[in-house]
Amino acid sequence: MKVLIPAMDSVAMQQLRQSAPGIEFLAAKDESEALALAGEVEGCYGTCSLEFLKAATRLRWVQVRSAGVERYPHEELKRRGVCLTNARGIYGIQLADHTLALILAFSRQLPFLFRAQQRQVWESRDHYPPGELAGQNLLVVGLGGTGLETARRAAGFGLRILATRRHPELPRPAFVEEVHAPERLHGLLPRADWVAVCVPLTAETRDLFGDEEFDRMKRSAVIVCVTRGGILNTEALVRALQSGKIAGAGLDVTQPEPLPAGHPLWTMGNVILTPHASGHSPHADQRLLDLVCDNVGRFARGEPLRNVVDLDLGY
Amino acid sequence: MKVLIPAMDSVAMQQLRQSAPGIEFLAAKDESEALALAGEVEGCYGTCSLEFLKAATRLRWVQVRSAGVERYPHEELKRRGVCLTNARGIYGIQLADHTLALILAFSRQLPFLFRAQQRQVWESRDHYPPGELAGQNLLVVGLGGTGLETARRAAGFGLRILATRRHPELPRPAFVEEVHAPERLHGLLPRADWVAVCVPLTAETRDLFGDEEFDRMKRSAVIVCVTRGGILNTEALVRALQSGKIAGAGLDVTQPEPLPAGHPLWTMGNVILTPHASGHSPHADQRLLDLVCDNVGRFARGEPLRNVVDLDLGY
Repeated sequence: MKVLIPAMDSVAMQQLRQSAPGIEFLAAKDESEALALAGEVEGCYGTCSLEFLKAATRLRWVQVRSAGVERYPHEELKRRGVCLTNARGIYGIQLADHTLALILAFSRQLPFLFRAQQRQVWESRDHYPPGELAGQNLLVVGLGGTGLETARRAAGFGLRILATRRHPELPRPAFVEEVHAPERLHGLLPRADWVAVCVPLTAETRDLFGDEEFDRMKRSAVIVCVTRGGILNTEALVRALQSGKIAGAGLDVTQPEPLPAGHPLWTMGNVILTPHASGHSPHADQRLLDLVCDNVGRFARGEPLRNVVDLDLGY
Repeated sequence: MKVLIPAMDSVAMQQLRQSAPGIEFLAAKDESEALALAGEVEGCYGTCSLEFLKAATRLRWVQVRSAGVERYPHEELKRRGVCLTNARGIYGIQLADHTLALILAFSRQLPFLFRAQQRQVWESRDHYPPGELAGQNLLVVGLGGTGLETARRAAGFGLRILATRRHPELPRPAFVEEVHAPERLHGLLPRADWVAVCVPLTAETRDLFGDEEFDRMKRSAVIVCVTRGGILNTEALVRALQSGKIAGAGLDVTQPEPLPAGHPLWTMGNVILTPHASGHSPHADQRLLDLVCDNVGRFARGEPLRNVVDLDLGY
C-alpha cells in the first residue's frame, strides 16, 4: 500500500516507517511531483488540491496539515468517498497562548506602553486605564480544542467563562461556567467583556460576526480571533471599531490575508494585528508528525482514523 | 480617638465612618496639613514621612497605601513602637496579570509583531520564533501574594511552577510543583525558562540578581520583575542582556525610576519596559479602602490589625 508524503528529514522518516512497516512511502517535494505520483497512492499526507484528487484515482485517505479545512474541495472528496483527516488538536495550545497574549496586551495596555517605550517616555499610569481580568466575562465562541485550551488558561485569571458549542449537552469542564448552543450567541454577546472566536471557518460561521453582532457587544468589549479571518466580516469590524461600538480587536487572521498595506486595520489604535502567527510553535511539527504516524498506522491496519472531518459540517 | 486620613470622596468617607463609629477622622489634603494635625492623632492612613512621625507624638499605627515599604523610616517606627500595616493583598491580582502579559508578549513575540504592524508588514512567521509555554519551567521568586497569583495563572498554561519562599514548609498549593527555601535560588536558576520576581525590596533582596545570578540562568531565559527595581542590579542586568547571558527582561520597575531618557534599557530589542504600571487596576482603590476600613475598625476595637509589617524583615 502506497502513501504520498512531502519530503521529510531522516529522523521524521524513521518515525513514520516504524509506525507502519507495511506502507511504502513516496515522497514528493512539490505539487508537480505529487501529481506525477498521484495515480499510485491510496493515502496522502499534505496535498489536497482538486487537481491532485482528480489524478489520484485510487485515493482513499488524505491527511492535511491544517485544522481548518475550508479551502479543500469538499464536494470532490464527498463524491469520491475520500476520507479527510485534519490537524485538530495540534494547534490549540499555541492558539490559546496567543489568544491570552492578545487579551492581556489589551487589558494591560501594552500597545500604548510599547509606543511610550519607543519614545523613551515613562508614561504616568494616569494617562491610560489598565484593567483587571478577574471577575470579567470571557465568551468563548466554539468550545472545541482551541476553545477548551483558551478557557482553561483564562480561568486561572479569575475570568468567568461563558461558551457556545454545537453540543452543549456534553459534560461541562469545571473551569467553564456556562455552555450554550451556538444559536444563543446573540443573547450572550451583551454579557461579554472579551470574545474569543475559536470556531473553524465553515459555511455556518462565515461572517458570523457582522453589524448586528458587533451592535450587541459592550462598547468596552474586545474581540480576539486567531482561527480564520472570514468569521468576522471585515467591513463590519472596521465600522464597529471606528464608531466605538466595540473597544478593540486582536486579530491573528484577517480577510483577506495578507492584509493589504493601507488597509484601515493596520493603523487603528485599538487593533493588534499579528500575521497568522498563532499556530507557530516549536512543538507543533512533532505533534503533527505523531498524529500522522498514528493515522498512517491505523490506515495500514484498517482501523478508524483520528480527526476525521465531517464534510457536511466542514470541520 | 482620632485618625488622620487623606481627603476622600463622600462615598468612601461613609464606608469609613460606618466601619468604626467611635473614630474621629481628620482629613489632610497634603503633607503640610498632615503635619499640622499630626500631634492630635493616634492612627494615620497614607502618610509615613520621618517628619510626620516626629510630629505625631501620640501615633500608634500607620497604614500605608503600598505593599512595598522600603522607603519608610523603619528605625523611627521601631524605636517608637508604631505599628506599620501595608497594602499586601491589594495588588497581587493585577501584578500577576501584568507578569503574565509580559511573559506571553515575549513568548508570542509581540514586540517584534507590534513593530511589523507599525510598518504595515505581514511578517512571515519564519522570521522569528514564537514559543509555547506548556512544559516550560517558571521560577517564582517569592511565593507570597503576588507570587501565588502569578503561579495560579501560569499553571493554566501548563507551565511547571518552581518557587522559593521564606517558609517552604508551609502547605504547597496544588498548582505549584516545587517549593524551596530562598537559599536554593542559585540551584534553581539553571532550570528556569522564565523567572518571575515577586519578592518585596528589603535589605536581603536588594541586588538579589547580579552578575552571578544572571550567569546561572539559561541563555534562553527571560526575567520579569514587577515589584521593585532595586532587586535586579541594573548594571548587571544591562550586561546580561547585552552579552546574551539571558534572552530578555520584562520590567515594570527600574532602578532608578523614572528610567532616564537615553538609558540603554529603553532601546534594547529584548526588553519590554512599562512605567511602574502593574499595580494599576480599576478595583485596587476599593480593595484598599476595604482593607483600611477593616483595619480602622480593628484599631478602634483594640483588635490585632491585618497586614502588620515585620520591621526586622522589612515586609
